[in-house]
Amino acid sequence: GDTAATLGNGQVETTVAADATLPGWEVELDATDGGLQVGDSVRFSKTLSAEDVEQFAAVSGDTNPLHLDDEAASQTRFGGRIVHGSLVSGLISAALARLPGTVVYLSQDTEFRAPVRIGDRVTADVEAVEDLGGNRFRLRTQVLRDDDPVIDGEAVVLIE
Amino acid sequence: GDTAATLGNGQVETTVAADATLPGWEVELDATDGGLQVGDSVRFSKTLSAEDVEQFAAVSGDTNPLHLDDEAASQTRFGGRIVHGSLVSGLISAALARLPGTVVYLSQDTEFRAPVRIGDRVTADVEAVEDLGGNRFRLRTQVLRDDDPVIDGEAVVLIE
Repeated sequence: GDTAATLGNGQVETTVAADATLPGWEVELDATDGGLQVGDSVRFSKTLSAEDVEQFAAVSGDTNPLHLDDEAASQTRFGGRIVHGSLVSGLISAALARLPGTVVYLSQDTEFRAPVRIGDRVTADVEAVEDLGGNRFRLRTQVLRDDDPVIDGEAVVLIE
Repeated sequence: GDTAATLGNGQVETTVAADATLPGWEVELDATDGGLQVGDSVRFSKTLSAEDVEQFAAVSGDTNPLHLDDEAASQTRFGGRIVHGSLVSGLISAALARLPGTVVYLSQDTEFRAPVRIGDRVTADVEAVEDLGGNRFRLRTQVLRDDDPVIDGEAVVLIE
């Protein structure tokens, strides 16, 4: 579960247990446990909060005002703060991680189709579409908000 | 700068100011301020800590034991915990964000060439290689550890 421990420097570290599913996260797995097969799919949903965006800025280094500064963001085409595209595509990784077996990420192609707003609930939806041999699979990867794709892309993974 | 404010629920929110460069982050920008041109480049370096990996797991939902559980990770081909590929590619976004103008991410293709270990210092190195017209540019994007590529890829951005 989600336990908080205070680090020496006063910063509370939110410790997330391996394989945890935190409150507000939702997983729908459609796969046999006999190992990944073409047609298997998994959906992972969560809401992206202002805290998520600010913590991602701190861990990635992406402090683009478009994500952090209401005033600056309001003057862009988006008219307000948007979530980092890299954070939204992180949910694809979260979905892939819940496929059967140990999933090793080999590549990800990502098109950012629409901006995600702070507070949006989004769903990463991945489906195995081709067995490339040698335990490698190609997957269709989308992130959806109310069934509209905000990200379209493709991943290749190795299953150990 | 990096200021911490306590949220209602007792979790300290690390607030990162827009355009901030935190201690340990390093930026090298090689671009004229007259707007992005082919040949312009930027490098962004930071160290990826265990806290970064655990916070990324909490904000993305990727709680793959490969990143969080020493015991489980030691039994994989990596022999120990590795940093989420999505977090490492987040540094590309951090580099792009420091190009002149407001940078809008349109696409990112990423190949994960080698694992990044907890505690590694890595550098996202991006260079504009083609002007696609309409303020869109194609960039070569790499993440390096001691000059070895851990990520190879390509991005398309729109500069507002």
